[in-house]
Amino acid sequence: MDIKKLINAAQEKAMPDLVLKNGTVLNVFTGELLQQDVAIAEGYIVGTGSYSGKNEVDISGKYIVPGFINAHLHVESSMVTPLSYSLEELRHGTTTVITDPHEIVNVGGAEALADILDSAERNPIDYYVMLPSCVPATPFEHSGAVLDADSLKAFKNNPHVLGLGEMMNTVGVLNNDISVTDKLESFSDMIIDGHAPSMTGKSLNAYVCAGIKTDHESTTYEEAVEKLRCGLAVLVREGSASKNLEAIITGIVKNNIDTSKLAFCTDDKHLADIRKEGTISHNIRKAIALGLPVLRAYQMATINAARIYGLKNTGAIACGYKADLVVLDDLEKVTIAEVYKGGTAIENIELPKQKEYAPPASDIDPRRSVNCAPLLKNAFHIPEKKSYDVIGIIKNQIVTEHLTMTHDEVMAGLKDGSVRKIAVIERHHATGCFACAYIKGYCLKHGAVATTTAHDSHNIIIIGDNDSDMFAAVKELKRINGGYVIISDGKAIGSLQLELGGLMSTKPSEVFIAELDDVIKKAYEAGVDPDIDPFITLSFMALPVIPKLRITDCGLFDVEQFCFLDE
Amino acid sequence: MDIKKLINAAQEKAMPDLVLKNGTVLNVFTGELLQQDVAIAEGYIVGTGSYSGKNEVDISGKYIVPGFINAHLHVESSMVTPLSYSLEELRHGTTTVITDPHEIVNVGGAEALADILDSAERNPIDYYVMLPSCVPATPFEHSGAVLDADSLKAFKNNPHVLGLGEMMNTVGVLNNDISVTDKLESFSDMIIDGHAPSMTGKSLNAYVCAGIKTDHESTTYEEAVEKLRCGLAVLVREGSASKNLEAIITGIVKNNIDTSKLAFCTDDKHLADIRKEGTISHNIRKAIALGLPVLRAYQMATINAARIYGLKNTGAIACGYKADLVVLDDLEKVTIAEVYKGGTAIENIELPKQKEYAPPASDIDPRRSVNCAPLLKNAFHIPEKKSYDVIGIIKNQIVTEHLTMTHDEVMAGLKDGSVRKIAVIERHHATGCFACAYIKGYCLKHGAVATTTAHDSHNIIIIGDNDSDMFAAVKELKRINGGYVIISDGKAIGSLQLELGGLMSTKPSEVFIAELDDVIKKAYEAGVDPDIDPFITLSFMALPVIPKLRITDCGLFDVEQFCFLDE
Repeated sequence: MDIKKLINAAQEKAMPDLVLKNGTVLNVFTGELLQQDVAIAEGYIVGTGSYSGKNEVDISGKYIVPGFINAHLHVESSMVTPLSYSLEELRHGTTTVITDPHEIVNVGGAEALADILDSAERNPIDYYVMLPSCVPATPFEHSGAVLDADSLKAFKNNPHVLGLGEMMNTVGVLNNDISVTDKLESFSDMIIDGHAPSMTGKSLNAYVCAGIKTDHESTTYEEAVEKLRCGLAVLVREGSASKNLEAIITGIVKNNIDTSKLAFCTDDKHLADIRKEGTISHNIRKAIALGLPVLRAYQMATINAARIYGLKNTGAIACGYKADLVVLDDLEKVTIAEVYKGGTAIENIELPKQKEYAPPASDIDPRRSVNCAPLLKNAFHIPEKKSYDVIGIIKNQIVTEHLTMTHDEVMAGLKDGSVRKIAVIERHHATGCFACAYIKGYCLKHGAVATTTAHDSHNIIIIGDNDSDMFAAVKELKRINGGYVIISDGKAIGSLQLELGGLMSTKPSEVFIAELDDVIKKAYEAGVDPDIDPFITLSFMALPVIPKLRITDCGLFDVEQFCFLDE
Repeated sequence: MDIKKLINAAQEKAMPDLVLKNGTVLNVFTGELLQQDVAIAEGYIVGTGSYSGKNEVDISGKYIVPGFINAHLHVESSMVTPLSYSLEELRHGTTTVITDPHEIVNVGGAEALADILDSAERNPIDYYVMLPSCVPATPFEHSGAVLDADSLKAFKNNPHVLGLGEMMNTVGVLNNDISVTDKLESFSDMIIDGHAPSMTGKSLNAYVCAGIKTDHESTTYEEAVEKLRCGLAVLVREGSASKNLEAIITGIVKNNIDTSKLAFCTDDKHLADIRKEGTISHNIRKAIALGLPVLRAYQMATINAARIYGLKNTGAIACGYKADLVVLDDLEKVTIAEVYKGGTAIENIELPKQKEYAPPASDIDPRRSVNCAPLLKNAFHIPEKKSYDVIGIIKNQIVTEHLTMTHDEVMAGLKDGSVRKIAVIERHHATGCFACAYIKGYCLKHGAVATTTAHDSHNIIIIGDNDSDMFAAVKELKRINGGYVIISDGKAIGSLQLELGGLMSTKPSEVFIAELDDVIKKAYEAGVDPDIDPFITLSFMALPVIPKLRITDCGLFDVEQFCFLDE
């Protein structure tokens, strides 16, 4: 930014590049709606008032608000590249994203992180990164990489890095585990994101004393307000699965709570949901509908997030601020007429060159995807026992049951389709780590369903009714370099390539959404229970921090006892 | 800060050092008043709720609010040392000050700045410094030092430095003067304070585009709200001379303007006024009385200022925040019962060792004070002319009149006491620069009044009715190493030593206030008009940026024509 040019354009000593004329500007600092022109030069706002410009756009009758900030999200949940994801956000008015790439970094480690930061440089939106604090998420599984405090510190000075990503190891924080405090102390001069679902009282106080500044896990008003009182910024989440906005905002409005430490985020939102309803635009709309004053809702979406994360010259329509602007037909309904990023209407933004079906120059390369050891012939054989510990899927929920079934019950289940085998295969370093067990409630008729997306270590996870199709599924995942597959009688009847780390596709969103719909449809046709998401539910079966029974590449894990089950 | 100790104390794994029990806590984040204990360890707040501590203080029936932040001030206006000044602030609940030492730096340059920063290290309150941007303030006078961008940049990494001090060279900003933009660009990653009295419209837009973030010069609501809209933080000033709070806050309340970019400051406030009414405590009290909601007033005094200046862990009663606390008997009247800095009650704070009447170890040393060239015998002789340009003092105002008086009128004035001689003598580098003229309205009966405090270059300024007493005044100022003097028939009948740079006294406040009162009393006894402050009015006669006629060591300056008068 050349301040001399801004200073001249502000005084009309040089003509501004663009003037948006006669709109109604929402000033997030004063809380006023003001009929003003907005003058832009060099990608920055140089003044409001009455201006003439090289280009002028009349927006009489419309509103202008600052571009939105999505304060916390994982791009990997969209399964497309950072670039493709960002373009989706941009269409819905988001001009700044604060991302935590902990999925892809669990796969690709520091190299993937460097690639993400490199691509951020060429991303048309402001793409910030919180460095993943918990890679691996737990010691009960093998991820692709281990990132300690020193590996993370190497990235501190990157201009896209705002701090340390969500600290999920709450036990480690409260017990002063050295590996955790090392990380916290290394980032005490930056923002540290929290992740403290249901934490309360003195534990919460201690967690905040550790230097943690934000939390996005509140599901109730009471949880949110306790966190605010402690000093945490509360990021109100409305994603595909976790929808916390109504509970929190209703309480905030009812109790007349100050909103200056509240912002909006999506955390995990799928592409189809984004296309349907937007991201932060949806949060604003919903919050206003729940009675939050219009100004407060837009402040949460803009300047509040900027303040919480220390972003300069972002989040307001004011002099010297980035010309990140959303033009609206309706302020309360957040109906978007146009979006400007750095003073350029989004349809005119030049994108980094990207070929369909090939990794774009601006994104991470697929250097690692499926690298598992050869499987033994009897890999999927489960020795006969009197009784088995069985994972019980609960419809529409992420928690599972810990079932104990007799041999006869399991055999009957295998026959009627209610019980299937589930296996996790380490896929990063060909360690040969492997586990296989029974699962109830998935309801696949015949064949195997498999994916390389399996939280948080992202090993291969497979469900099947016969060993041969399970072998074929692993083979197919290797062939396509990661993704989703459905196998029947040795043939791939459905397949979705996620060649970037086995998590993301390089295809354009349109193509990708169609392929995703197709593979999900095929899974249901193969008999998966219609109340279960065939791949997302599967991908959570390996997450050893959510009750009650899970499977990792190291074995069956009892989350309540916090240990593996004996063989 | 050892976060491990805080984490343990928060969970009562180790006992907190101090617990303030049963008070009512003002939470500036949620806006709530909550009955809670406040637990403190290692000087930080570790939790609110129900706690036991090594020490417990019952404050039932009282309120606890965060320590106040004075967002902009010049310590030199108090004429005591930074340490003495800070102790005055502390008694009135201020635990953080953001200072601009531009008076002393105009005298002592980079060395004085280094001394101030060194003493900040040992100051019991949080003493932050904005680096003086305009030394000298104007090119029309000789100050003790010239600080360019490079000299300032050398101080950027000092932990007490928050950025660049008030940019008074508004013309230089708007015209992209290279010496100004050099400074602005050097500090674009930090806070830059503004100083833009009455600036409006496109000039204001340009000024803000230059990267300036604050302004404390608004005198009306309209001026303040325009600056807020542009993106400036507005520091609402209530000092000894400039009292802007009522005008601004009345408008803010009436128009329901968001207060998140508003904070409080005093700019220049004298010790006697501080003793009488406090500093930021007075601003809060007055704002509440004008109808500002209690929460908003306290936010302005605490968290808002912290956000504006990027201060971390300050300005709130929350986990991991500094235990800077004010205990109040009454929230609206701001009646202070106790002040804690870093968890220590102020009466228990250990001070840096300081002897009465000697420069304290913690403060700047008096290496420079009065260093003027020998005066010629006819120094105060004004050649006879038909008519003279005469400075006209206006009672109770800082602006002056530009009078033209005939020889006879001047002679009559000298006789009846309405006209006296005024002289400015360069005192930093013995350059010999010198100017003498007539002034009307000061009304000294007989003798000479002189001071080394003369804004902003702080040369010697003298008013007298006879040359011999004027010579004696210079001699006396040299002898006492700077200060205020009153001479009659060659004898010092009043004298106040300001041995730190000729601006500040190292004496304790109690002693100093008595001496100041005495010298002012003596000045009035010597005949100075009772509607004029004998020394402060005199000290502004050399400031060549305030209309209409001024005198510097380079001559009589016509502020409206912005040039010196021809001899």
